[in-house]
Amino acid sequence: MKDRGILIVLSGPSGSGKSTAMAELLHRRDNYYFSISATTRDPRPGEQDGVNYWFVTRERFEQMIRRDELLEHAEYVGNCYGTPAGPIDEALDQGKDVLLDIEVQGAMQIRSRRTDAVLIFMVPPSYEELSRRLNSRGDTPPDKIKARLETALRELHLAPEYDYIVVSETVDGVADEIEAIIDAEKCRAQRRAKFVKEDFFNALPPHV
Amino acid sequence: MKDRGILIVLSGPSGSGKSTAMAELLHRRDNYYFSISATTRDPRPGEQDGVNYWFVTRERFEQMIRRDELLEHAEYVGNCYGTPAGPIDEALDQGKDVLLDIEVQGAMQIRSRRTDAVLIFMVPPSYEELSRRLNSRGDTPPDKIKARLETALRELHLAPEYDYIVVSETVDGVADEIEAIIDAEKCRAQRRAKFVKEDFFNALPPHV
Repeated sequence: MKDRGILIVLSGPSGSGKSTAMAELLHRRDNYYFSISATTRDPRPGEQDGVNYWFVTRERFEQMIRRDELLEHAEYVGNCYGTPAGPIDEALDQGKDVLLDIEVQGAMQIRSRRTDAVLIFMVPPSYEELSRRLNSRGDTPPDKIKARLETALRELHLAPEYDYIVVSETVDGVADEIEAIIDAEKCRAQRRAKFVKEDFFNALPPHV
Repeated sequence: MKDRGILIVLSGPSGSGKSTAMAELLHRRDNYYFSISATTRDPRPGEQDGVNYWFVTRERFEQMIRRDELLEHAEYVGNCYGTPAGPIDEALDQGKDVLLDIEVQGAMQIRSRRTDAVLIFMVPPSYEELSRRLNSRGDTPPDKIKARLETALRELHLAPEYDYIVVSETVDGVADEIEAIIDAEKCRAQRRAKFVKEDFFNALPPHV
């Protein structure tokens, strides 16, 4: 039987390079399950149910909360967003490593519900680089960039609450760090103790 | 300035494949400092002071204990063995990762003195393989093999006390696991929080 996968929560401000790093990770290994959020907002042109989001009604969303079907949820400009637990547990049971891209409040909700979740915070290498990245998206108005920079700094103060902090100096470097974290977490004594107990001691020959 | 290195304690019974894995690690990277123990026993032919051991008198050894110069120490068939802290801290300060090959009692002493030490226990993939490895050393008498197997089983029960458990299925595989652990530990929030605080926030431009 395959070992249960690792639940990885990745947070990081806009401009931290999170999406690029995620894409690099998914490209490197085929053992990841990338979680899809549920939302009450309307699909935008081109968005597909079950691909970009699970699009649900507000009644259904409230039912999911009541039935404890969400690992975390939040409301943002009048719409609800949440992480359904079902597909994640299914993927973990199949031995897949689950990647969740979640902002800081949601990450803290997951921590309190899933003590075995691994929380990683991605920081940009410097303020200058963060500012450069946000400014390089040509279509963002200056006041929106300023707001994002302020949000980023506020979020960065929470980095020490996470298990790990990775620095997105380069895409390859930060993907290496995240892979090392996942591989190391699989060796954690809490997870491997089962191997020692079941695969080793229970399999001792009768004369020992 | 370089980040302080990681103090890694590696334990594992005779036959776990620890020495081979250590050699593979030292071969792969040149950033390791392999700690040398102090001992009161006499040098065997060919053994050199400062290479195989630091050979010291019993008075000097007792002085080291009194002055708190040892990270751990033990007596074994009338001779004292210990791990001098000085060279280790020097290597850590230089950013080197320090590898200590220590048995379980010593590992627990180090844990209580150095809360940032990373404790790794190496287990053989199965009892059959452990037994095969111990028997394949042609020159060991059967009663000694039996005693080593019993010691190995006793030590294996302590594996869950460690931070990580690695399985020596193959030399490459177990070296990969240990490298992932070291790389992941460098990303631990306790260690990286300093980066966020000093390198990021203290370097903010004056207008932010």
